[in-house]
Amino acid sequence: MSDTIEIKVRGYHLDVYGHVNNARYLEFLEEGRWALFDGKLDLTDWQTRGLSFFVVNININYRRPAALGQTLKIHSFLSRIGRSSGVIRQEVFIKASGELAADADITFVIADSSRGKALPLTGDLAREFEIFQPRK
Amino acid sequence: MSDTIEIKVRGYHLDVYGHVNNARYLEFLEEGRWALFDGKLDLTDWQTRGLSFFVVNININYRRPAALGQTLKIHSFLSRIGRSSGVIRQEVFIKASGELAADADITFVIADSSRGKALPLTGDLAREFEIFQPRK
Amino acid sequence: MSDTIEIKVRGYHLDVYGHVNNARYLEFLEEGRWALFDGKLDLTDWQTRGLSFFVVNININYRRPAALGQTLKIHSFLSRIGRSSGVIRQEVFIKASGELAADADITFVIADSSRGKALPLTGDLAREFEIFQPRK
Amino acid sequence: MSDTIEIKVRGYHLDVYGHVNNARYLEFLEEGRWALFDGKLDLTDWQTRGLSFFVVNININYRRPAALGQTLKIHSFLSRIGRSSGVIRQEVFIKASGELAADADITFVIADSSRGKALPLTGDLAREFEIFQPRK
Repeated sequence: MSDTIEIKVRGYHLDVYGHVNNARYLEFLEEGRWALFDGKLDLTDWQTRGLSFFVVNININYRRPAALGQTLKIHSFLSRIGRSSGVIRQEVFIKASGELAADADITFVIADSSRGKALPLTGDLAREFEIFQPRK
Repeated sequence: MSDTIEIKVRGYHLDVYGHVNNARYLEFLEEGRWALFDGKLDLTDWQTRGLSFFVVNININYRRPAALGQTLKIHSFLSRIGRSSGVIRQEVFIKASGELAADADITFVIADSSRGKALPLTGDLAREFEIFQPRK
Repeated sequence: MSDTIEIKVRGYHLDVYGHVNNARYLEFLEEGRWALFDGKLDLTDWQTRGLSFFVVNININYRRPAALGQTLKIHSFLSRIGRSSGVIRQEVFIKASGELAADADITFVIADSSRGKALPLTGDLAREFEIFQPRK
Repeated sequence: MSDTIEIKVRGYHLDVYGHVNNARYLEFLEEGRWALFDGKLDLTDWQTRGLSFFVVNININYRRPAALGQTLKIHSFLSRIGRSSGVIRQEVFIKASGELAADADITFVIADSSRGKALPLTGDLAREFEIFQPRK
């Protein structure tokens, strides 16, 4: 498990403005979440248990453009577990300057794969996510 | 100018869950905004005038998965012009059923390219956006 | 079925050079192949029959850069059916000038889904592809 | 400079078949080339010298599907320098099994940015590429 990943900005990440494209940030964030879960939460095992992890909302702020050759640090952690949904907070920093390039709240639910219904995030299910809380 | 575009879901739009990927939706939305601006707002001309259109926030709800072969209708319109930022509202419908697959608010600013500062959305600048409001 | 599609070059298609990115062309070509097959060859039905369409080689020439706002025409047709593989030819033209931006040969096999082995493209299987040959 | 990179296959890399998508491989290969050039060949400096690195042909074989969670090793090296073009060879291995997932020859030219014409790959220009040859 790694709650921080680094991605170097390449030519194919940019768009007409010469900055990392809005949609590409969502791939960077998804990469950050897969890295966060690596070795801790087995989504394949979840599928066999009939559970699906679904993102239901992404609220992302684009704060500062990221340019070719810059290295981005993406920090991800569980910021909130509610009764039926949770929130993963993700922050993208420009490594050299420490400036915030983007930050996002990713709201997810755990759904029963057969019926597609969100399950209550209580008991065992809630405990499985506690490991993703920021380390003090 | 077209405030509605159609996109047919293809194999390369999907991800491991067999649904349109979260990041891909942002490309669909960007396509919708380019179509909205087509012939009405010349971003190249804007660049020569020293103006840049920057998205500063995207708040997107993923409401219902979209699957292979479905046609999506993406409806885009200006929902709000404030003093320093505006909001484009975009809704993605599954054409056959009329169900909402996703909806998003895209907050933008118009920046002075040389200084990177957001300009007040008043006067002529505000008027250029009025054509994107929903037709009554 | 449509053997020609049009795609308008948008800001998110470009890369650091301001031209359509190499990888993005492969999505444009895939879109062209899905459009070619639409209504003629049902890949979902194929899956239930235990057949998979696999691309085994792509040979693409990048001949002329495509820029923001240009409309591309992508022409796709079956150029060859051999004993065990077929070739789809795809050509990308810049609509306004008629110039060739890229061309590609896409070599495919039809595989038995359960064993992953390429099937001989003879008899009924070959006939299903004849409709994709260029119209005289 | 690193002639080998590793990429872990994530859910957003896959397509409807549950395998890494054809177009995505081209991004993996481009990532491999940027890593190969890192610290050795400064494309930004090249631009100021009026030189552009253009890919003119990609010939890629898809040999074995790559699936979720597998780590890919991408090996890149200069395989040929001709009078007017060069070839970078790239091979994608599934790390755990050592099997070849894909291999590609990337043909490039160095162009004079102002006239867009390919320059002869001789003298100093040829020497700049010798460092990318495989180490014996």
